[in-house]
Amino acid sequence: MKASIIAVGTELLFGQTVNTNAAYLSDKLNHMGFDVMYHFVVGDNPKRLKEKLAEAFSDTDIVLLTGGLGPTQDDLTKEMVAEYFGVEMYEDKRVLEDLVEFFRKRGGRMAENNLKQAFLPAGCTPLYNASGTAPGFALSKNGKTAICFPGPPREMKWLFEHGAEEYLSELTEKKMYYRVIRTIGIGESDLEMLLMPLIDGQTDPTIATYAKEGECTLRVASQRDSAEEAEAAVNEMISRISGIAGEYIYSLDDEELSEVVVRLLKEGSMTISAAESCTGGAFASIITSVAGASEVFKSSYVTYSDEAKTELGVDRDIIAGSGAVSAETAEAMAEALFKRTGAEICLSVTGYAGPEAEPGHDVGEAYIGYMYKGKIGHTRLSTSRIDREWNRNYFKLRMLRTAYMLLRGQDIQ
Amino acid sequence: MKASIIAVGTELLFGQTVNTNAAYLSDKLNHMGFDVMYHFVVGDNPKRLKEKLAEAFSDTDIVLLTGGLGPTQDDLTKEMVAEYFGVEMYEDKRVLEDLVEFFRKRGGRMAENNLKQAFLPAGCTPLYNASGTAPGFALSKNGKTAICFPGPPREMKWLFEHGAEEYLSELTEKKMYYRVIRTIGIGESDLEMLLMPLIDGQTDPTIATYAKEGECTLRVASQRDSAEEAEAAVNEMISRISGIAGEYIYSLDDEELSEVVVRLLKEGSMTISAAESCTGGAFASIITSVAGASEVFKSSYVTYSDEAKTELGVDRDIIAGSGAVSAETAEAMAEALFKRTGAEICLSVTGYAGPEAEPGHDVGEAYIGYMYKGKIGHTRLSTSRIDREWNRNYFKLRMLRTAYMLLRGQDIQ
Repeated sequence: MKASIIAVGTELLFGQTVNTNAAYLSDKLNHMGFDVMYHFVVGDNPKRLKEKLAEAFSDTDIVLLTGGLGPTQDDLTKEMVAEYFGVEMYEDKRVLEDLVEFFRKRGGRMAENNLKQAFLPAGCTPLYNASGTAPGFALSKNGKTAICFPGPPREMKWLFEHGAEEYLSELTEKKMYYRVIRTIGIGESDLEMLLMPLIDGQTDPTIATYAKEGECTLRVASQRDSAEEAEAAVNEMISRISGIAGEYIYSLDDEELSEVVVRLLKEGSMTISAAESCTGGAFASIITSVAGASEVFKSSYVTYSDEAKTELGVDRDIIAGSGAVSAETAEAMAEALFKRTGAEICLSVTGYAGPEAEPGHDVGEAYIGYMYKGKIGHTRLSTSRIDREWNRNYFKLRMLRTAYMLLRGQDIQ
Repeated sequence: MKASIIAVGTELLFGQTVNTNAAYLSDKLNHMGFDVMYHFVVGDNPKRLKEKLAEAFSDTDIVLLTGGLGPTQDDLTKEMVAEYFGVEMYEDKRVLEDLVEFFRKRGGRMAENNLKQAFLPAGCTPLYNASGTAPGFALSKNGKTAICFPGPPREMKWLFEHGAEEYLSELTEKKMYYRVIRTIGIGESDLEMLLMPLIDGQTDPTIATYAKEGECTLRVASQRDSAEEAEAAVNEMISRISGIAGEYIYSLDDEELSEVVVRLLKEGSMTISAAESCTGGAFASIITSVAGASEVFKSSYVTYSDEAKTELGVDRDIIAGSGAVSAETAEAMAEALFKRTGAEICLSVTGYAGPEAEPGHDVGEAYIGYMYKGKIGHTRLSTSRIDREWNRNYFKLRMLRTAYMLLRGQDIQ
């Protein structure tokens, strides 16, 4: 069944609020096997809301609406939905009692306009709201279903989980299953070319690629009569994808690369440490962003200046001879780091994030050094980008990838 | 003039990606004096994209589109826009050269489907993309204007700032001028109360407050017949705001606090260094994210474990006696750091970012230590939040704020 989502609220059109509700509901709907066709955002304007509601229903069976259920006069979602379905509003006794109780408990008097919230479209299934004052509701008529949620994400989620999800599950037979695969080391276009034999003319499971910062994600989704069928179809397709692109896959379960690296370190009861120049601590920061990182991460150094590198233990002559941004310095940093920390995996990075580089070097040039199991090595990066933020992030991701490849016993590229 | 925004991408309808682009563009368009009427999200589906494009144009003069400009076969935004305007596609020589050069520098071979990116609608104004491979473009015909951006937020923003904004500004007669003021140390509602005499009944310039992670931003905007008039009105209002809320303002030009801190350090030819525990390098990372930070930042330490703290020079007994998360340890870290680096500003942080804390402590409790001009001190933080990411970011911001207040000679709170 086809669904669309309408968010009501001028603050969204001002760009003051990001429409996270649509993402949350889309994810839920897809899991349940509905096809989300559109998101709409309209302001607190009854005429345009009514138009978009009709538009959405012209093409989809289910419309989820968020926002515009509050007590103020510009909250008109309920009224427009009732008008669309041609039903009257009625005062819901329980909502009214809940409202009175809510304000009594808070010891505050109830502003008159709150009573507006007790009115719902006749024939609807009320979604009583224990997480706030504005109730939601579901209303089905002539094969069309509208479900209205308050705008605040916390209340919207609460009502979805307490009533709306169950209501929706009774509308569908089809079951959806999907998994998200994470890859690194291959661009979106190359990955798509590689998988073209599987993607081409593929209707179910579907394979969608999309590029994320320095990596590429694959979404494999199937919609069948039973959840078991869908799951089996997805897993069968994933094993075929692994056969073709396995070397680039670092997670079959949508994990962040940092999470995978920390998990592998824990499994091997190993620790990791870094000596960072151009990334300035970004690598240490992403490793320690993983809960429980303290098991595998003890200390790290940001050796930004030449003095800091020599203070770490890098031979002055190496920096003088090969330059601060060089394979030799990167390897010397990793080795000096190992002498300091004794961490099983010692990584270093030195490079030009931008906007400027020394004469004879390009912005985007960097060297990652590593020492692992007594072996010292490096990898050279060249992004041909001038964007400092982009470069720093890419260097950090490549450090993560280097750690991952070392842990997986793969050759460092 | 009326505008709407269409985001193209199935990942948005799957709920895997949140449509932050629409919020960014809405904010910018509103600044420029355009009225944003709708947001639409459609999947990578030519038919539905074309329908929504026609729908958007039926009611608005300007349509901004994001996504679907990439190299893969489901990227069809350009083609649909060309079809709507009834123009052919042409191969843009410069885009082609940029592509070839991009892949040459990368040393990688260019997947054939990348060539698709060099084709643009005839008569468009190309938006050449130095932040990625997919170009954007603006196309106006019969009073209707479409501007297409790549989906990745950074590329979209880069193209907006490098071409699209200027193109849009020529479409409107009214001239808009605005400035963004950054404040820290006061909540949004308190700031609004403080400025109420200025905000109340204020039509032009308008004053809008936005709460951001741990800080609050003010946007002062004016729309007049001439840019000069608008600028004068905004600056006059800003001087009145400074008179009332000056103590909380750290930038009158929308600078990041990290940029201001680096600028103040440069002006005082001082250096800064950090010993980070719970933030794991996030502070060093944000300082070094500022171009030219190398002048003021030489080295930094991530002392995550107790051993790392003693290795830095913290007395074992202090950690044993007061605990790793304590004012005493935070101050000892700052003092030990000063002995190591001699930096004018030495900051430390130790705390519980979550999800867990030692018995007798709360998640969200942290201590920032500092040594500056021979003075050692600390400030205690307690967020009463359990969100690890939120806490780490807040601790980092408070470290920035501590550096800022030290540099401004203000008392540390």
